[in-house]
Amino acid sequence: MGRIKCVISYDGTNFSGFQIQPKTRTVHGELEKALKKMHKGEPIRIHASGRTDTGVHAKRQTIHFDTPYDIPYENWKRALNTLLPADLYVREVEEAAASFHARYDVCEKEYRYYVWNEKEPDVFKHNYAYHFPYTLDISAIQSACKQLEGEHDFTTFSSAKATTKGSKVRTLYQVSCSKSGSEIEFIFRGSGFLYNMVRIIVGAMLDVGQGRRRQEDIGRLLTQKDRQLLGETVPAQGLYLWNVKY
Amino acid sequence: MGRIKCVISYDGTNFSGFQIQPKTRTVHGELEKALKKMHKGEPIRIHASGRTDTGVHAKRQTIHFDTPYDIPYENWKRALNTLLPADLYVREVEEAAASFHARYDVCEKEYRYYVWNEKEPDVFKHNYAYHFPYTLDISAIQSACKQLEGEHDFTTFSSAKATTKGSKVRTLYQVSCSKSGSEIEFIFRGSGFLYNMVRIIVGAMLDVGQGRRRQEDIGRLLTQKDRQLLGETVPAQGLYLWNVKY
Repeated sequence: MGRIKCVISYDGTNFSGFQIQPKTRTVHGELEKALKKMHKGEPIRIHASGRTDTGVHAKRQTIHFDTPYDIPYENWKRALNTLLPADLYVREVEEAAASFHARYDVCEKEYRYYVWNEKEPDVFKHNYAYHFPYTLDISAIQSACKQLEGEHDFTTFSSAKATTKGSKVRTLYQVSCSKSGSEIEFIFRGSGFLYNMVRIIVGAMLDVGQGRRRQEDIGRLLTQKDRQLLGETVPAQGLYLWNVKY
Repeated sequence: MGRIKCVISYDGTNFSGFQIQPKTRTVHGELEKALKKMHKGEPIRIHASGRTDTGVHAKRQTIHFDTPYDIPYENWKRALNTLLPADLYVREVEEAAASFHARYDVCEKEYRYYVWNEKEPDVFKHNYAYHFPYTLDISAIQSACKQLEGEHDFTTFSSAKATTKGSKVRTLYQVSCSKSGSEIEFIFRGSGFLYNMVRIIVGAMLDVGQGRRRQEDIGRLLTQKDRQLLGETVPAQGLYLWNVKY
């Protein structure tokens, strides 16, 4: 009985994103369908830390919902996972304060982005990383990443389609890049992220890595506040919502 | 012009196996569709080292076909990959002797099978390994594996549905098992394999690892030649055709 907080993970490949939509398979829709079954047909509304786009994965996404039932937490987990499809899994279930909100109470989010930096594609990575066959200067990317850390107005690095009103100032605690074998990992930790922000930043970082843009330009781009100055948004399948902190 | 040999890889998740069938998406069907386009509507027949079942993956499968065209090998590769879907990739293209046959000339095949041995499932491994949550005695499995190496009649370890007539004697050069973190890898190298043989062997090895069957029994099972003596065939998604040698 009361408010329940769940940490879930999903393989985004076969979901049309997170948000509920009629006639398409979404994470939100599958969760509410399972909860409705558990509540004998009573609709249960869930709230998440935020949406993810089609093809974006989640290692640890957080949701909350209210229930009239009084069930041990371990049983909630087992019951939900029995009803959910194989590409969506409830990792943790716990009691939350009545005032807890999965979206409004977020204090830090972490995203990771994976690039497969090999000349030839790998069929097993197609849905899980962005295949980028060109040579990259990783240390130039690392320097450019550092310039994005801290509090900035990220208008230049957010989608022109974004409907968000209000401030585009966000604080990034960590922006880093490392390479292990042919796999490049970007880590982003911040107070919040604008729409498409991670994918636009990674696109700009790959430009830097190819020498198509200088690492010193990043600071100037931030002050110019113009999305048109940047290149392409990298594809969704390399992106993972890695963790949410409250 | 002449006979072309290709090494291909595919993610088996979204294919209804290898063999061509009307109305379903198969590896064979996608390859012949691409070749037909390249040959201006002329159907081109391909031959593979063998079939793989629905959900089974291939790191290196080999096929051959005959073409009237005289195209540099690098161009064949590029042209085919442009026409093929993202989960099917041509890794190598080379000229073959007119007498070469991808199926009849095989001298060694290698399969690998992956088990995800963690209490909790991982949504990102669901299509790529078999989730087995119970504790396993890996050294007992390793001893049992050794008893399968060499020349044996594998009737006990082949599908009762198999239509293969003739000898069920095969030679296995390597049967091994190792664990790294939560991932268990089985490697099978042999002169040839019967239908479902790898998946039936892995099922028996997991029985040994759980103590439900003694490692010493394996030799006796081979001599009994009865599929009914064994338990379940493990699922297709953990299986990879790893290499084919000629």
